[in-house]
Amino acid sequence: MYELGVVHQDISRASAADVEALAPLGVSTVHEAMGRTGLMRPYVRPVYHGAAFCGTAVTVLLQPGDNWMLHVAVEQVRPGDVLVAACTTENEDGFFGELLATSARARGAAGLVIDGGCRDVAALEEMDFPVFSRAVNAKGTVKATLGSVNIPVVCAGALVHPGDVVVADADGVAVVPAARAAEVAEAGHRREANEEDKRRRFAAGELGLDMYGMREPLKAAGLRYVGGSPKEPTA
Amino acid sequence: MYELGVVHQDISRASAADVEALAPLGVSTVHEAMGRTGLMRPYVRPVYHGAAFCGTAVTVLLQPGDNWMLHVAVEQVRPGDVLVAACTTENEDGFFGELLATSARARGAAGLVIDGGCRDVAALEEMDFPVFSRAVNAKGTVKATLGSVNIPVVCAGALVHPGDVVVADADGVAVVPAARAAEVAEAGHRREANEEDKRRRFAAGELGLDMYGMREPLKAAGLRYVGGSPKEPTA
Amino acid sequence: MYELGVVHQDISRASAADVEALAPLGVSTVHEAMGRTGLMRPYVRPVYHGAAFCGTAVTVLLQPGDNWMLHVAVEQVRPGDVLVAACTTENEDGFFGELLATSARARGAAGLVIDGGCRDVAALEEMDFPVFSRAVNAKGTVKATLGSVNIPVVCAGALVHPGDVVVADADGVAVVPAARAAEVAEAGHRREANEEDKRRRFAAGELGLDMYGMREPLKAAGLRYVGGSPKEPTA
Amino acid sequence: MYELGVVHQDISRASAADVEALAPLGVSTVHEAMGRTGLMRPYVRPVYHGAAFCGTAVTVLLQPGDNWMLHVAVEQVRPGDVLVAACTTENEDGFFGELLATSARARGAAGLVIDGGCRDVAALEEMDFPVFSRAVNAKGTVKATLGSVNIPVVCAGALVHPGDVVVADADGVAVVPAARAAEVAEAGHRREANEEDKRRRFAAGELGLDMYGMREPLKAAGLRYVGGSPKEPTA
Amino acid sequence: MYELGVVHQDISRASAADVEALAPLGVSTVHEAMGRTGLMRPYVRPVYHGAAFCGTAVTVLLQPGDNWMLHVAVEQVRPGDVLVAACTTENEDGFFGELLATSARARGAAGLVIDGGCRDVAALEEMDFPVFSRAVNAKGTVKATLGSVNIPVVCAGALVHPGDVVVADADGVAVVPAARAAEVAEAGHRREANEEDKRRRFAAGELGLDMYGMREPLKAAGLRYVGGSPKEPTA
Amino acid sequence: MYELGVVHQDISRASAADVEALAPLGVSTVHEAMGRTGLMRPYVRPVYHGAAFCGTAVTVLLQPGDNWMLHVAVEQVRPGDVLVAACTTENEDGFFGELLATSARARGAAGLVIDGGCRDVAALEEMDFPVFSRAVNAKGTVKATLGSVNIPVVCAGALVHPGDVVVADADGVAVVPAARAAEVAEAGHRREANEEDKRRRFAAGELGLDMYGMREPLKAAGLRYVGGSPKEPTA
Repeated sequence: MYELGVVHQDISRASAADVEALAPLGVSTVHEAMGRTGLMRPYVRPVYHGAAFCGTAVTVLLQPGDNWMLHVAVEQVRPGDVLVAACTTENEDGFFGELLATSARARGAAGLVIDGGCRDVAALEEMDFPVFSRAVNAKGTVKATLGSVNIPVVCAGALVHPGDVVVADADGVAVVPAARAAEVAEAGHRREANEEDKRRRFAAGELGLDMYGMREPLKAAGLRYVGGSPKEPTA
Repeated sequence: MYELGVVHQDISRASAADVEALAPLGVSTVHEAMGRTGLMRPYVRPVYHGAAFCGTAVTVLLQPGDNWMLHVAVEQVRPGDVLVAACTTENEDGFFGELLATSARARGAAGLVIDGGCRDVAALEEMDFPVFSRAVNAKGTVKATLGSVNIPVVCAGALVHPGDVVVADADGVAVVPAARAAEVAEAGHRREANEEDKRRRFAAGELGLDMYGMREPLKAAGLRYVGGSPKEPTA
Repeated sequence: MYELGVVHQDISRASAADVEALAPLGVSTVHEAMGRTGLMRPYVRPVYHGAAFCGTAVTVLLQPGDNWMLHVAVEQVRPGDVLVAACTTENEDGFFGELLATSARARGAAGLVIDGGCRDVAALEEMDFPVFSRAVNAKGTVKATLGSVNIPVVCAGALVHPGDVVVADADGVAVVPAARAAEVAEAGHRREANEEDKRRRFAAGELGLDMYGMREPLKAAGLRYVGGSPKEPTA
Repeated sequence: MYELGVVHQDISRASAADVEALAPLGVSTVHEAMGRTGLMRPYVRPVYHGAAFCGTAVTVLLQPGDNWMLHVAVEQVRPGDVLVAACTTENEDGFFGELLATSARARGAAGLVIDGGCRDVAALEEMDFPVFSRAVNAKGTVKATLGSVNIPVVCAGALVHPGDVVVADADGVAVVPAARAAEVAEAGHRREANEEDKRRRFAAGELGLDMYGMREPLKAAGLRYVGGSPKEPTA
Repeated sequence: MYELGVVHQDISRASAADVEALAPLGVSTVHEAMGRTGLMRPYVRPVYHGAAFCGTAVTVLLQPGDNWMLHVAVEQVRPGDVLVAACTTENEDGFFGELLATSARARGAAGLVIDGGCRDVAALEEMDFPVFSRAVNAKGTVKATLGSVNIPVVCAGALVHPGDVVVADADGVAVVPAARAAEVAEAGHRREANEEDKRRRFAAGELGLDMYGMREPLKAAGLRYVGGSPKEPTA
Repeated sequence: MYELGVVHQDISRASAADVEALAPLGVSTVHEAMGRTGLMRPYVRPVYHGAAFCGTAVTVLLQPGDNWMLHVAVEQVRPGDVLVAACTTENEDGFFGELLATSARARGAAGLVIDGGCRDVAALEEMDFPVFSRAVNAKGTVKATLGSVNIPVVCAGALVHPGDVVVADADGVAVVPAARAAEVAEAGHRREANEEDKRRRFAAGELGLDMYGMREPLKAAGLRYVGGSPKEPTA
């Protein structure tokens, strides 16, 4: 049940330090660092190759075929924010394009994720304004019905509060609650460090079966090897 | 109710001047200039990055799994035409590939939009023959059942008459009736000129709320601002 | 009915010569050489532009949200193999990413096709490890439930036996039974040679209607030409 | 390119006699009688078991999330008409429910087909007002943006002119152009008569292979029988 | 970001009086009474004709292919509760069937809505245990990975807190926050009363155009009537 | 890689005794008895409420938009067989209707599952000829291109050999290899017997947590209970 017709101007953003700490981590790492949760549904995709961002959410609730609230939202943007646009229903109209991107960038926006459509994608690529959307669609919109700005929204299946950190790259989009950003960033960096070591060992030919100690549990689960040389727990 | 088994050879194409006037406008602009109508459904996508075209339609009605009529259609192509292929049902087989593209180009075709599948997409990209399709699919087709050429067809949800102007770019595909091409081109150019000015103002930080005079109507619609500094209609 | 909890270590791979013969042929050609069969469903797409491979299948049956068996499978990989991962249900989680790719490559794997999701796609592109998947999805997986390795699986609608040749490029993925690989390769090369000649003739303006002798059968099927100059069978 | 903001009040309806002639034929028969064309896409489904209608089209072009034009359209309904509602984009909101059905029925409407959503389906079933829609959806709509009434529309992939006959039953929805209604009805009844005879022969054990004389063409096409008793053309 | 591996046993349920007040209202009415928000996505459908419920939510977060947490959740059920099951990813396995329904009913559960699959649907219909799911699927699940019970979840696009009122009928599923239940019920009943009057007037032939005073705003928006008798604002 | 243009007349069917043993078990039980494998994808649904069958497979490979092979297949049907129709591509045309059902029933067919569309569904319901399909679609087909009969096919993601037992009910469709039918039936009946006991205990209020001994493993996995009364492993 959404609160409609309201713009919350005082929102509590994750700290710049936390955003900075999360930025170098990829979406997959951030998601793992949250216990494998916090992802938007994978139908939200970058509109051009290489699009990526990390910033604090200014949320928008749109009505179908209507982008009025995006104009209202742009005024609320501060440098480093990203727009997170949900819709009261499923609709893939082209709510956002080059002009809004120009305006949003002028306010300091770092990108947009929208549970809807987007257009002018060639221009967005040229100006490198990263957008993640569920469709590319030239279909224009009207400005007739109120939604809201900076209320908690469900965008592509993920709950987003204003001020949360949103991370987007080629793997998708993750949402980190502002209050957990520091802790998630730290867990992510630990995981990254750990992965670097694993990467080296995998490249050298070590198997996951051995690295993760899987042979015993696989045997316990009943895995049988047929033919070939026998597989021992200690390989 | 389609007329089947017929090839109309005398079709009335939009003038070259009108095509030329529409070509530099993007699909989104053309669609807006038609009152936000005239788009194909957004599931029709370019098969390679950068594919785009503008030309007059030679229409084709295909049967599922059968590309016979595309061969018939190619003979009807004149320089500057584009092929617009509909199907009597939903089918994503690979009706079109490198050989047909080579043949179509030899006749002067500027591209293809197909409410079906397409293959040889690496070759199409290399030869830069722009195709917009609903799927990439290696699945080959037979040549056994008649459809028609140059009848009015519904392609990806849009009605296309032979000779209409079809514009395609990264944002999708728009169809301009031949008789309205001049008027739409003119409206599109007016819109473009207008957008250039807006782009500059947006880049300079002006808000859509002010540029479009939205503050009053938003207030009248009941939008409430909570927290922050008050938002006045005259900002 | 899948055999569960088993790893077949002695599989019969198509010969290296046959793989080499198939490799230069595209997926569309290979599929045509098999009588227009042998394709996976077109929803399996390359995760980056230019991804392609040809190799012998090491098959994997996964459980939803669980990539344990991929680790088991990697040990079975020999140089030139490709991983073919099916799932007991529809699931688009990110079963495979950079670490598994590093490990698979260290064993000599030439690529992966997975009827599920894949992540770390930017890294996969950078290391040029070709993956074909039904989704890009950061969603991580657990290691808790047994599937199997090197049993016959249905992957994206195609039956794949361990050791079959799997060919993947921008047009999709084709599966060639090991026992038929030589014959399919030969038929494919005959087709290619034939296509080269056709390509030249099409480029020179010859029509498919004439090249394939379609005018008579079209007339027999009842095709009528309206307007324009009459179309004679011998044109 | 749709004409927007207009209501055409003088439309030319198919004659009551033609509607009456088409009514007893099923959608599949009507579609076959049109040369296997004239169907809406199969995603349009009845909202309750047994829903069916046959009537003349009053067409409506809707905007997403907005059912204003349905109210305008109801005034144009005459007894025996059916509402045919298209939308300028894909949108599955609940544009239509019990109140509009009550109003439409009071004007004599025989049903609705909508390329969008519908709600109050339990009430619609109880009052037996047949609706065919692409979704059942409680989502309500606004009344803010103009579309049109009684212009030609593309609904679920089929072109519908005001006054065309629309037939709907458990198999889907077919559209018969007003000017062809008599001819299609006649062809349909011929087909039905013919089918009655076939049904009896099939029930008595006669095979389609023999009834349709397929054995020769199958043999000519190269069909081989392996094992069993030989299959002769004259069986 | 979900809290994992936890069962909250003390939840604050909407009062029985509020549930009782909401129960007779349909989903469409409840949704309208919440300002046209609060709906789950329409892909969640009843598994049998006539399924409907109204109760307080016991929420469950599932892992793909794993129904362990449903067993944990059943213990938390009190008479009048409904189970609301979300999943950490998109998965349509058959998480729930006759045995769990029997167990849930024994605890007093009034139904289930699940953003996943359900099986034994013939048995569920026979015992009249109402389930709303995104798929019917015989696919069984394991019990291996922890989710949570009675945390806030996003189910089919809607945020649900434990204790919220969930209303489900043929039109879909709506979620009413516990704290707003009384107010929404009251608004819903007002709306219902109002609709009864409208229903009578519509049945008597009054038009929405007149009942809602739409003629003036339509004229102001520019609607043109072509042909027929003139349409006056006061009709 | 399918063998095309062939009809295998000598196929090895599961014994009547095995079919009889499997028939009373539901699809979900049969699927569990096969280790949770052997299901078709859940998009194959009954075309009417209550449709169900169990029989031995006569397989058909169709070409898109072409039902020629269904006529060929009907001749191969013996009492108790079911038709299993796959297609070389995704196509939802109405390959099968009342006449073919009449013919198939006259030969003793017990039903059809088709990875495609079906029509005349009202008639099929009236004659109670059970069909499971991926779509209801009035779209008619031609008879022009060869497929095969009684070769192994992949239908809705499941491999089916001629003579396999196919079980279909409201939960979906399962395939039991002929050679495993007796063993699966036995396992299924054991499971059923076991379930009967569980059903009684669940109905009496016993929890799955206790019946399945889940409290210890849940605790070991780290599940925490917050608030309420403590949960002890032995409850």
